[in-house]
Amino acid sequence: MSHSSISDVLAGKYPVESIITVKGWIRTVRANPNFSFINLHDGSCFDPIQIVADKNLSNYAEIMKLTTSCSLSVTGKIVESQGKGQSFEIQADSIEIIGLVEDPDTYPMAPKRHSVEYLREHAHLRPRTNLIGAVTRVRNTLAQAIHRFFNEDGFQWIATPIITASDCEGAGEMFRVSTLDSVNPPLTDEGKTDFSQDFFGKEAFLTVSGQLNVETYCCALSKVYTFGPTFRAENSNTSRHLAEFWMVEPEIAFADLATVAQCAEDMLKYVFKAVLNERKDDLEFFDQRVQKGLIQRLETLSETSFVRMDYTDAIEILKNCGKKFEFPVEWGVDLSSEHERYLAEEHVGGPVILQNYPKEIKSFYMRMNDDNKTVAAMDVLAPGIGEIIGGSQREDRLDILDARMIESGLNPEDYYWYRDLRRYGSVPHGGFGLGFERLVSYVTGVANVRDVIAFPRAAKSANF
Amino acid sequence: MSHSSISDVLAGKYPVESIITVKGWIRTVRANPNFSFINLHDGSCFDPIQIVADKNLSNYAEIMKLTTSCSLSVTGKIVESQGKGQSFEIQADSIEIIGLVEDPDTYPMAPKRHSVEYLREHAHLRPRTNLIGAVTRVRNTLAQAIHRFFNEDGFQWIATPIITASDCEGAGEMFRVSTLDSVNPPLTDEGKTDFSQDFFGKEAFLTVSGQLNVETYCCALSKVYTFGPTFRAENSNTSRHLAEFWMVEPEIAFADLATVAQCAEDMLKYVFKAVLNERKDDLEFFDQRVQKGLIQRLETLSETSFVRMDYTDAIEILKNCGKKFEFPVEWGVDLSSEHERYLAEEHVGGPVILQNYPKEIKSFYMRMNDDNKTVAAMDVLAPGIGEIIGGSQREDRLDILDARMIESGLNPEDYYWYRDLRRYGSVPHGGFGLGFERLVSYVTGVANVRDVIAFPRAAKSANF
Repeated sequence: MSHSSISDVLAGKYPVESIITVKGWIRTVRANPNFSFINLHDGSCFDPIQIVADKNLSNYAEIMKLTTSCSLSVTGKIVESQGKGQSFEIQADSIEIIGLVEDPDTYPMAPKRHSVEYLREHAHLRPRTNLIGAVTRVRNTLAQAIHRFFNEDGFQWIATPIITASDCEGAGEMFRVSTLDSVNPPLTDEGKTDFSQDFFGKEAFLTVSGQLNVETYCCALSKVYTFGPTFRAENSNTSRHLAEFWMVEPEIAFADLATVAQCAEDMLKYVFKAVLNERKDDLEFFDQRVQKGLIQRLETLSETSFVRMDYTDAIEILKNCGKKFEFPVEWGVDLSSEHERYLAEEHVGGPVILQNYPKEIKSFYMRMNDDNKTVAAMDVLAPGIGEIIGGSQREDRLDILDARMIESGLNPEDYYWYRDLRRYGSVPHGGFGLGFERLVSYVTGVANVRDVIAFPRAAKSANF
Repeated sequence: MSHSSISDVLAGKYPVESIITVKGWIRTVRANPNFSFINLHDGSCFDPIQIVADKNLSNYAEIMKLTTSCSLSVTGKIVESQGKGQSFEIQADSIEIIGLVEDPDTYPMAPKRHSVEYLREHAHLRPRTNLIGAVTRVRNTLAQAIHRFFNEDGFQWIATPIITASDCEGAGEMFRVSTLDSVNPPLTDEGKTDFSQDFFGKEAFLTVSGQLNVETYCCALSKVYTFGPTFRAENSNTSRHLAEFWMVEPEIAFADLATVAQCAEDMLKYVFKAVLNERKDDLEFFDQRVQKGLIQRLETLSETSFVRMDYTDAIEILKNCGKKFEFPVEWGVDLSSEHERYLAEEHVGGPVILQNYPKEIKSFYMRMNDDNKTVAAMDVLAPGIGEIIGGSQREDRLDILDARMIESGLNPEDYYWYRDLRRYGSVPHGGFGLGFERLVSYVTGVANVRDVIAFPRAAKSANF
């Protein structure tokens, strides 16, 4: 059953005149009584390969009836292509028809332009389209590059838990995980659900972040990262939110905020370069059909130094820029997308790393600065999207951490294991979080994150 | 804040006499009034590096009080080690004490032998031990090698959904995911839970496998794989089961069972070789302290051809081998671990790929063989563990698939999207599943899968 990938054939891996076999699905077909042109696709690259079939083939009558998405095995000779575009095509010696398409007239992926909404409803068939095929390959390239970047730099991948019983991170936005009877759950004497009888012996949820867990490994192995699914039960029906999405969360020991920011910049540039090197074919499609100038933007980003700016300076810039914003700006406010994009797109004209935010708008675990007003937090803002990464140095001083927990309404005892890291050989450390689907969306220009994950999960939507 | 990893220093990356800085935690310390020896560890490799501190250091009085797990930054000169074992050590010019250990006498990870049960109760601190540190690095190496193996071979990584509303895969063993009120859920007129009011608008669960989903991408991109968490709400308190574990599931189009089996063999050998090449230090620890002969076993496995054997032949072998088994053997039974291990360890003396199992003991989606009694399924059995991989060619013929679903008590309409793959350009395809924790357990010799994942989840256990 050995056969060649279309990617290898188009890349010239085999000499002209070689006899090879390729297997795939028909993208388009032009049939006439003397010879037919079949564009065959196997997902290994953006382009299909052209198959020339002539009437001498024993099953030519059946070949003339083929339609989009029929599956074939084609054996033939590689020849240089006469037409424009591709370098090579295949003159078929034999074509085995593997699978037909039942009722081609109603086939949901007929070769025409479909809306992204229509494609989402057919998420099991949409990888057969140019758009979703290209997204899938770029997504894969980005994921591989992320693992490679961290591995080459001595980071260890850690699988932090998906199911967590730490209900202290804001249970309102979390999904409960249970095996209790949903109609008649066991109750305690106080009439509450008796989770002691549940599978885990207590109430359990899906994780919203692996950060606190991965810090425990950071404080033993120095450089670690997570890359796994995280969950938010938020009812936000936007193009930037999913109920289930993948996060990358590196954590570095003996690191200050500057080290964390540099790691974020280096990682983004590394993965931009990887996708430019490895998936130029798919990027050209996105550049032509989805977002003009995309390749140029990625090339620029992968070479430009990211500007560092303090939050406090950014506020001054926004207040004095003369631009009218929907949300007014003042020291202490959380920046909106319009502010972030102004800074990156108009003021700097490139990526910016904003640093040292007011403690009131950031999480309890971020390290307090000496001014006692700001914390060592950072956001990476990129032109065309705004915030793409958020991170911080973590509070490594137990007394200050405890005070911040209490200020935030948390009970330090619930975090005894997180506090232990500060009791036993505490070190300065920090890290960041990257929403992987937002990265894929940014790199492909595909606006809605529901179109860059195989089977998107959102409010009222968990099909397939 | 730039410093060197201990791994690089011990590997001889820096010339002798170089002045460098290393940062890490104390493993052990021997202090006396004239000079002290500190073993400093940063997780970058198995071994700590020896620091020699003499009394001329300005803070020598404090250095003499240091204990296990205190964190330090040490700047000094690389010198050749006089003692046995390591090649290099560091003569400290200065030692900065970063973090102390609060009450060393009660520090839970004091330098002595702890039971694995005790370590599990301190899962946030156990990565500081030799055992869990080594497991973590080997686990990382295996994960990276798996991604590399598939990526180099043209596979695309697909993130199949974690939350699924397909309740047809055997809901009894699945975790429900919900945001409904757990005490008073909304009810339908029939008194059942009204999941139409739940977050996803229907009852949702945690996935038990990404296979059916990933087949949709296989039938468009030819070579794909998943690597993500999966869940079983089984109350089995064994050393081989977790409620949350990671699975690797490749799926190959235009492939028969032989192709799938070869892929499984190639992948295992690739990852065994990777860990032998990259983590010899940790493997030597496991070989000495956990399972004698482990390195030899991995070396042999990575070179040996895996024997193929039909289930039917295996049954004959087991019936006639003269050995008394706890569970009797007869054609049609599912093999137990004792049978699998006899075949691999005693009969073959190496890994075996068992093929073509009775349809009654296998899943509906496995391809029916021409004998109408067996399906094109395979299990990889390895010495010392038994089944490590299970896979099959998938049923690509719609009529037979439908018949098998009905036989298995399933409603084909619930699987309309899975059936569509057989209606529109169906192709022979197949794949396998590898439980990642079982692989890590096998490679390290660490018997209980709870000790090869950071924070294990099992019945009555979801701490941290």
